[in-house]
Amino acid sequence: MFNIRTDLAIEAKEIYENKSKNTIPGVEVYKYKENDVKVTEVKIVNCDGEEAMKKPKGTYLTLDIPEFTPYDLNTMDEVSEVLGKTISSVINLDKSMTALIVGLGNWNVTPDALGPKVVSKVMVTRHLKELVPDQIDENIRPVGAVSPGVLGITGIETGEIIKGIVEKVKPNLVICVDALSSRKTDRVNKTIQIGTSGISPGSGIGNKRMELSEKTLGIPVIAVGVPTVVDAATLANDTIDMVIDDMIDKSQKGGKFYTMLKSLDDEDKLKMIQEVIDPRLGNIIVTPKEVDMVIDSISKVIANGINLALQPALKLNEIERYLN
Amino acid sequence: MFNIRTDLAIEAKEIYENKSKNTIPGVEVYKYKENDVKVTEVKIVNCDGEEAMKKPKGTYLTLDIPEFTPYDLNTMDEVSEVLGKTISSVINLDKSMTALIVGLGNWNVTPDALGPKVVSKVMVTRHLKELVPDQIDENIRPVGAVSPGVLGITGIETGEIIKGIVEKVKPNLVICVDALSSRKTDRVNKTIQIGTSGISPGSGIGNKRMELSEKTLGIPVIAVGVPTVVDAATLANDTIDMVIDDMIDKSQKGGKFYTMLKSLDDEDKLKMIQEVIDPRLGNIIVTPKEVDMVIDSISKVIANGINLALQPALKLNEIERYLN
Amino acid sequence: MFNIRTDLAIEAKEIYENKSKNTIPGVEVYKYKENDVKVTEVKIVNCDGEEAMKKPKGTYLTLDIPEFTPYDLNTMDEVSEVLGKTISSVINLDKSMTALIVGLGNWNVTPDALGPKVVSKVMVTRHLKELVPDQIDENIRPVGAVSPGVLGITGIETGEIIKGIVEKVKPNLVICVDALSSRKTDRVNKTIQIGTSGISPGSGIGNKRMELSEKTLGIPVIAVGVPTVVDAATLANDTIDMVIDDMIDKSQKGGKFYTMLKSLDDEDKLKMIQEVIDPRLGNIIVTPKEVDMVIDSISKVIANGINLALQPALKLNEIERYLN
Amino acid sequence: MFNIRTDLAIEAKEIYENKSKNTIPGVEVYKYKENDVKVTEVKIVNCDGEEAMKKPKGTYLTLDIPEFTPYDLNTMDEVSEVLGKTISSVINLDKSMTALIVGLGNWNVTPDALGPKVVSKVMVTRHLKELVPDQIDENIRPVGAVSPGVLGITGIETGEIIKGIVEKVKPNLVICVDALSSRKTDRVNKTIQIGTSGISPGSGIGNKRMELSEKTLGIPVIAVGVPTVVDAATLANDTIDMVIDDMIDKSQKGGKFYTMLKSLDDEDKLKMIQEVIDPRLGNIIVTPKEVDMVIDSISKVIANGINLALQPALKLNEIERYLN
Repeated sequence: MFNIRTDLAIEAKEIYENKSKNTIPGVEVYKYKENDVKVTEVKIVNCDGEEAMKKPKGTYLTLDIPEFTPYDLNTMDEVSEVLGKTISSVINLDKSMTALIVGLGNWNVTPDALGPKVVSKVMVTRHLKELVPDQIDENIRPVGAVSPGVLGITGIETGEIIKGIVEKVKPNLVICVDALSSRKTDRVNKTIQIGTSGISPGSGIGNKRMELSEKTLGIPVIAVGVPTVVDAATLANDTIDMVIDDMIDKSQKGGKFYTMLKSLDDEDKLKMIQEVIDPRLGNIIVTPKEVDMVIDSISKVIANGINLALQPALKLNEIERYLN
Repeated sequence: MFNIRTDLAIEAKEIYENKSKNTIPGVEVYKYKENDVKVTEVKIVNCDGEEAMKKPKGTYLTLDIPEFTPYDLNTMDEVSEVLGKTISSVINLDKSMTALIVGLGNWNVTPDALGPKVVSKVMVTRHLKELVPDQIDENIRPVGAVSPGVLGITGIETGEIIKGIVEKVKPNLVICVDALSSRKTDRVNKTIQIGTSGISPGSGIGNKRMELSEKTLGIPVIAVGVPTVVDAATLANDTIDMVIDDMIDKSQKGGKFYTMLKSLDDEDKLKMIQEVIDPRLGNIIVTPKEVDMVIDSISKVIANGINLALQPALKLNEIERYLN
Repeated sequence: MFNIRTDLAIEAKEIYENKSKNTIPGVEVYKYKENDVKVTEVKIVNCDGEEAMKKPKGTYLTLDIPEFTPYDLNTMDEVSEVLGKTISSVINLDKSMTALIVGLGNWNVTPDALGPKVVSKVMVTRHLKELVPDQIDENIRPVGAVSPGVLGITGIETGEIIKGIVEKVKPNLVICVDALSSRKTDRVNKTIQIGTSGISPGSGIGNKRMELSEKTLGIPVIAVGVPTVVDAATLANDTIDMVIDDMIDKSQKGGKFYTMLKSLDDEDKLKMIQEVIDPRLGNIIVTPKEVDMVIDSISKVIANGINLALQPALKLNEIERYLN
Repeated sequence: MFNIRTDLAIEAKEIYENKSKNTIPGVEVYKYKENDVKVTEVKIVNCDGEEAMKKPKGTYLTLDIPEFTPYDLNTMDEVSEVLGKTISSVINLDKSMTALIVGLGNWNVTPDALGPKVVSKVMVTRHLKELVPDQIDENIRPVGAVSPGVLGITGIETGEIIKGIVEKVKPNLVICVDALSSRKTDRVNKTIQIGTSGISPGSGIGNKRMELSEKTLGIPVIAVGVPTVVDAATLANDTIDMVIDDMIDKSQKGGKFYTMLKSLDDEDKLKMIQEVIDPRLGNIIVTPKEVDMVIDSISKVIANGINLALQPALKLNEIERYLN
């Protein structure tokens, strides 16, 4: 049937919990608040957890961030601070170690351009440490940053490009930034997920791709993602589920109609979705109308969170001196 | 309830026909084919038609265009030729008369930027006819073109700006180009509507705005529109309707459940939609992922259709000499 | 000969003073400093001044601003404050009066896009005062903003478009923003000129255009400009003059060579310039390599200066709440 | 002194010939015409040639192309055909061999964005040959394409990034595309140079960088470049030289002034240049005002020339089917 999936561990958890009343085996969940940001930590600790969540072992931190406009600089800075702290909690770097930031996604497709936009706003210092070491504070960490493009643009697996660069640059850590998809419209551009188990570029599209992870690159890989779209088929599917659930509530338990509703299967639902969304249309997404502006400001928030995590010796206003 | 509406006469007709088995009073429909383009002509001829269709009297021509990629120049040119012919059929201009092309919409919001993009690609000649008349073929019509922006950007009603410019420039015809919304995902970027009864900029958003029409401007106003989005609430609404219809088909006529389904009203449906789409989110739209590229190529098709209609003395390859 | 000209009153003054040792008749000059910004006020008070300066009567204030990078927010805010104060000193508005901001220039040509970029960053309130008066502080002035484009894009004189809009909107003040050209590379993007005598869009290009001024629009017109380029022919001309002056200094007064140098006329110099710059090339300009980024940040400074001048009830951080 | 240099072999040859009346040792020159394109082939055949030309051994082909506007598709196609033929003459590939196209330069700086713009317009097929080999004509060559960015953006030497990617992708040929600088304004955007001896990214800026060449990458490297700017200091320097030469012609041979002019050295000239161009300003360039539009259309010409050279089985209109 239509590819109904989620990139978010917090949604995988909700899907599991909707189906089963038990707690998820092999998964630990913690919740806390940092200023106006709600943090949910989902730890997949063993194979049971991997299977239940359909995600690899590791820590997944989700930030529920407050609304902000592109000019609400105080809120943006506050979210960057919380994000910086959260990323710091899952990395372990000496100050001399090098980090490489990788902006995944297609810069020609606005809701997929988050990664490249973040890369354009991070503090890049590796060349300064090499070329003009005397002019650079010794506490500043060497950081490089690349946006490798996507397979359809380069003809090359993103994993190959990054592996080639990592072998030359030899960083101690990779931070990948990518646009994700969510199941719920109210999470779009309102959630940041930080994960320790890497990422598979373009994994949602169906092809098996080389993942970027500690296993493939030999160094820790942190993934930072924001859901920027909901798949239109997901929206239709969820709408249908909701209507059916509503009908079930209203029909007599054990009655004929109740039984019919209960027996509707994926095949039936697929036919309904196809009546609403022409499957030949390809990638139909649900997104805020002003997505161009939203991606601009959220990418600034992410970039500054990463800057703070990688440069603990600097404050946000000092970081701005190094940007251009 | 959510604003479920359509900009397309062809959809208004379908909605009417779904509710009633009768032909629509005061409305004439003709269908024909030009090359690979299906043309549907909907004529609203009197007040009955206006009321049934919720649109002003006039002729609405809808082109169903074949799929094309940005490099499929032959198909693009062919659609431009059909569009040019269709626009010509509803305008009536001497060769010396001046036309003003108005690109409505917000250039910062990709799916709303169709109008300004078309304006950037049309053949503008009015200044050449005035400043260097000897260098310009006498058969070339004077054409001006403006993109007035939207109320939120300028602080001024678009109708006021255009009325002010029309009073100075004194054209004999206005052609407005605007992005529309459709009820169906398979019409998005696949349909062009040409109408003779003008347009109300931003009319869908709920405010009463000054319309651009022969009544307000004193000269004929042709509206050219392409649906570039489906409202997410519309998609959810249509999905719910479809599920309910499906249930009704499957339940026993006159039975308890049948009666319950039949009695579901807009209030109930609104509650369901709100469960899927957070109404605080504002404008959530459904659009192809590659909307940036699609708008680029469809705006070229529209621009050349307008160029051909306004410059009957020129062929498409001659028109390209005047563009830059 | 090549069109060697200046948009800056301060340069017109220098040119006059270089030719003549006398003070300029009909012109008053005052200099002072605001924080790190040097302000020069040139007042052309009568016809003698107009002829000497080749500029209309009025006040021309020039700000020499310190260097800043796009992330040096403190310096940018400081310059905005001085600019706001300077604009305030030449306007005279009640708080209820309406202002219209006009961004002149071609948005497709980076160094000419200053005006439209400023318009995209100003605080637009006129529609809010009309549509949702209860939600808007009564101290907030109604402001509209338009970027009319250039003659080659619209086919319509910019003056006509603005006059048409002014007649509909009936503002009490127009502020025009435009990119200028300078004679000196060290003034490029380092100087802001505020003038009270209006502006002629595209005046440099040689055609007689309808000026935007109190005379043509019937309300005060303030012009804010920044030199963003030096004409390449101007650079070559100035280089030649400098070499010749240097030669004259080194040659024996009254000697044969001295006489020859003194007798070089514009014809001779034109031939030299044409050897360096092919006159068929059209507009060859001298500009910083990073002009795209420089225009972005200087337009933010100008927009905020205008915002402060028009909204005396608000501080800069309050203004940001109204922007998007 | 100011860095007065040229990227063009044809200019290196002219500089040599201006200083010396002899033919250049170790250099062979051929001239011919293809349609409206003048081709000059400069072959540096030995070390004498390398020293005289200050360029590595190899073949440098220069195309002098006719003027064209962005809509003059016939001329653009014609130049693409000549370029395709010229590139074909210096490469030697079986049809199954893989090519990698590298777009050098900074996409944020318009006149430096030529390489990335070309990459966005080339036919990329390597992934199709791997993922859907049955859907792809067997005569189509696998081609990949990357834009690595510049040192200031990535913190990583461009040479390292490309070497890393080449080691993974193992292409048989690299084609690098870069924006160059010229000494003469009339060569800007009117000349294409094709060279067989590789390229040093950012070599003009003064730092020693890892070159991209057969020596460093182990496979043939073709460099395709277009001068898009003249350095402003070069323009000033050439203007000064020209004025001095003119003075020398006019002064009496052996006379006092003649001797003085002859004795002017680089130090003197540097002081003059600094009077015209403030050396603190950084990269001041001379460029056409419409550089944004010019780079767009010349990059299309280059991309199609490369497409034709790499896909000899296809015609230009067939190539367009593969682009998006």
